[in-house]
Amino acid sequence: MIGLNRTHDPQRRSWVESANVAGADFPMQNLPFGIFRGADGVARGGVAIGDQIVDLVRLRAAGLLKGKAAEAARAAAGPVLNPLLQLGNAHASSLRAALSDLLDAAHEDRSHRAELGTCLVPIRLATLQLPVHIGAFTDFLCSIDHTLRLRRGVLPPAFKHLPIAYNGRATSVVVSGTAVTRPQGQFRQGEAVTFGAEPSLDFELEVGAFVGTGNELGRPFTLADADGHTFGHCLVNDWSARGIQFFESEPLGPFLGKSFATSISPWIVTAEALLPFRVAALVRDVGDPQPAHLTSEVNSELGALDLALEAFVLTPRMRASGLEPAPVTQTSFRSMYWTFAQMLTHHASNGCNLQPGDLLASGTTSGASAASRACLAELSQLGTLPLELTNGEMRTWLEDGDEVILRAHAEHPDYVPIGFGECRGVVRSGA
Amino acid sequence: MIGLNRTHDPQRRSWVESANVAGADFPMQNLPFGIFRGADGVARGGVAIGDQIVDLVRLRAAGLLKGKAAEAARAAAGPVLNPLLQLGNAHASSLRAALSDLLDAAHEDRSHRAELGTCLVPIRLATLQLPVHIGAFTDFLCSIDHTLRLRRGVLPPAFKHLPIAYNGRATSVVVSGTAVTRPQGQFRQGEAVTFGAEPSLDFELEVGAFVGTGNELGRPFTLADADGHTFGHCLVNDWSARGIQFFESEPLGPFLGKSFATSISPWIVTAEALLPFRVAALVRDVGDPQPAHLTSEVNSELGALDLALEAFVLTPRMRASGLEPAPVTQTSFRSMYWTFAQMLTHHASNGCNLQPGDLLASGTTSGASAASRACLAELSQLGTLPLELTNGEMRTWLEDGDEVILRAHAEHPDYVPIGFGECRGVVRSGA
Repeated sequence: MIGLNRTHDPQRRSWVESANVAGADFPMQNLPFGIFRGADGVARGGVAIGDQIVDLVRLRAAGLLKGKAAEAARAAAGPVLNPLLQLGNAHASSLRAALSDLLDAAHEDRSHRAELGTCLVPIRLATLQLPVHIGAFTDFLCSIDHTLRLRRGVLPPAFKHLPIAYNGRATSVVVSGTAVTRPQGQFRQGEAVTFGAEPSLDFELEVGAFVGTGNELGRPFTLADADGHTFGHCLVNDWSARGIQFFESEPLGPFLGKSFATSISPWIVTAEALLPFRVAALVRDVGDPQPAHLTSEVNSELGALDLALEAFVLTPRMRASGLEPAPVTQTSFRSMYWTFAQMLTHHASNGCNLQPGDLLASGTTSGASAASRACLAELSQLGTLPLELTNGEMRTWLEDGDEVILRAHAEHPDYVPIGFGECRGVVRSGA
Repeated sequence: MIGLNRTHDPQRRSWVESANVAGADFPMQNLPFGIFRGADGVARGGVAIGDQIVDLVRLRAAGLLKGKAAEAARAAAGPVLNPLLQLGNAHASSLRAALSDLLDAAHEDRSHRAELGTCLVPIRLATLQLPVHIGAFTDFLCSIDHTLRLRRGVLPPAFKHLPIAYNGRATSVVVSGTAVTRPQGQFRQGEAVTFGAEPSLDFELEVGAFVGTGNELGRPFTLADADGHTFGHCLVNDWSARGIQFFESEPLGPFLGKSFATSISPWIVTAEALLPFRVAALVRDVGDPQPAHLTSEVNSELGALDLALEAFVLTPRMRASGLEPAPVTQTSFRSMYWTFAQMLTHHASNGCNLQPGDLLASGTTSGASAASRACLAELSQLGTLPLELTNGEMRTWLEDGDEVILRAHAEHPDYVPIGFGECRGVVRSGA
């Protein structure tokens, strides 16, 4: 079991100065994994530090890593990180520890700095890709407030018994920065059903978890083991075509209303990096179900993640005027009814085999407050009340050219805050 | 566009005599593709003929193939057929034509027979595997009768507008012969919700389609192009844990009630082999929706497949007594409301990217008659009326040790009938 260690030490600063800037997403204490293409066009694994990427292929070739850390870097040398995830969290943890030491400004031995310097690639010069091959994508429904707002105040019967979920479409998960084509489909217009461009295009601000080591078919794992199967996290924009979705969903759930695109942020913030930000799970009300296989003291006390989440919209008019994106949502991941450990445990509880790189998403992360409504369907009260953006523009749903930007930060008074980087996507016309 | 050709000629008989036995699943006119392990343990592509498999690796090495046929065999040399599917149907069609000629008893040149004979492996000595890596599995709801019986007589609003579907779980698709572990999960027992072994385990008799060439994200294809994206077909047993499924499904559809296992038959019967058995799609009632993008004369007149489908149950007691499996379902694939061309077109209509090897299943293939009820939930009237098997045993739901066997045949007075082979699975206790 990985616990707090020297990589979380808030005193650690890097000789890569951009990592020490207040509010930086990628300080010494984060070290998220991703896949990038550099100038040579070859996709390979990297770790973000400040505004730089440590090229793991070059780092290993430079001989600066040993043992499990070197094995982890080798597993991260290809175009997807699945081999690294499959190794288990201990390997990534060794690599994190080695990198933290190598990047530490206080490290007495500075002999490696020149060599490590040649392994750094500016993020702005790299093209970030999907960090893993996502073999399966599962989307959950963990926010009570989102559920109540979309279902006119009624929770589904199973909501408090288990984390309700559906299988999403993995092939259409795209990395931040990929344009999203407005889908065509069938939806109601008054009494009629028509086929055409989706009129009610929405975003959903979600948090994702990547499965590390998997489980065999027919072999569930316990809640206590779930953390060992969780590699790390990202932001997820679960784009939603509400017209299509609301028409098609009875009785088998969302399908084409979601499968046209799902955007994720490119960096996997490891579960280890987020350890200082673990908090108590949402407290159950008296009489709420406490299913034994989804309940533990550890989960109740430290199963949740304290993440501040934000969504912004940048319209074509804002872009043309040089305005900043308009904030539309500020919410907290603490308001989720289920923890990722519970989601993973439930997912495998019937024997379903999870595999390295599988993506699980939380569902829309809305809280109780008006500001925390984490999709337009909630913000516009199911399309009835347009939202006014900071520049005075109104939005009921997303228009062509609108860009949605998601951000996440973890903060704790005793630790250095870390960020997820951005998840961005521009809507383009499908015509 | 591939049409009827000499490979469908009912006069063609093979010098592999087992292919000419009346009622054989794999006569000259079928030539389905699969993946097998022979004595050397290496998985590779093969084509079934009678009770034999033509080893495509050896066949190509023997130099008996040219041009596209040789390219197709090379693409089928690995442990999954995805590269063959990706090549497009014209390649598989060339290989089929070449094989049909080589296996033809009437072929004047017999010089290749000895060499081809060394490429034959008896099916009973081979281990059949999943024919492709299934990157995504989508399950549809195409039977009106199944839908009405499970929903107490009410069709969902979208049913006649579009083929309703949900994303299934691809990782738990297993090949025929794999034991299926009874899942654990949460379900209602009277007023209470409990966690335990699923009490209401069911089968569903379905037909599957494998996507051949895919489409790019954001690029739908037309109904006219759908056949070009369809490589072939198999049988699907969509095992269903009814207790889990009925409790979890509101509002996001089936999840753990299905994802513990889905069995498929090992041979891909190509769309080309099934061309003689294309029939008119189910006729719409006056006033039924006719969405333009899912409607064409070709689809209406020749879009459906005339398959006779059967399900059997073999209980431990029958097995011990040497009895034959009890027939429980006889149905026809003609009763489906939607064709596979419509399912594929709908699936990609929002821009969702289908990929070679994706599996689409029809949903339970029930017809209107009592005999054609294609799952136990229908046969036992939602668990209220046990079914009497041929040996007098009663079944409301599947018991541990029960084996479910699915079969499919295509028949036409002017053509040689072909079969799908069996899809089998034994239920084993999860305790």
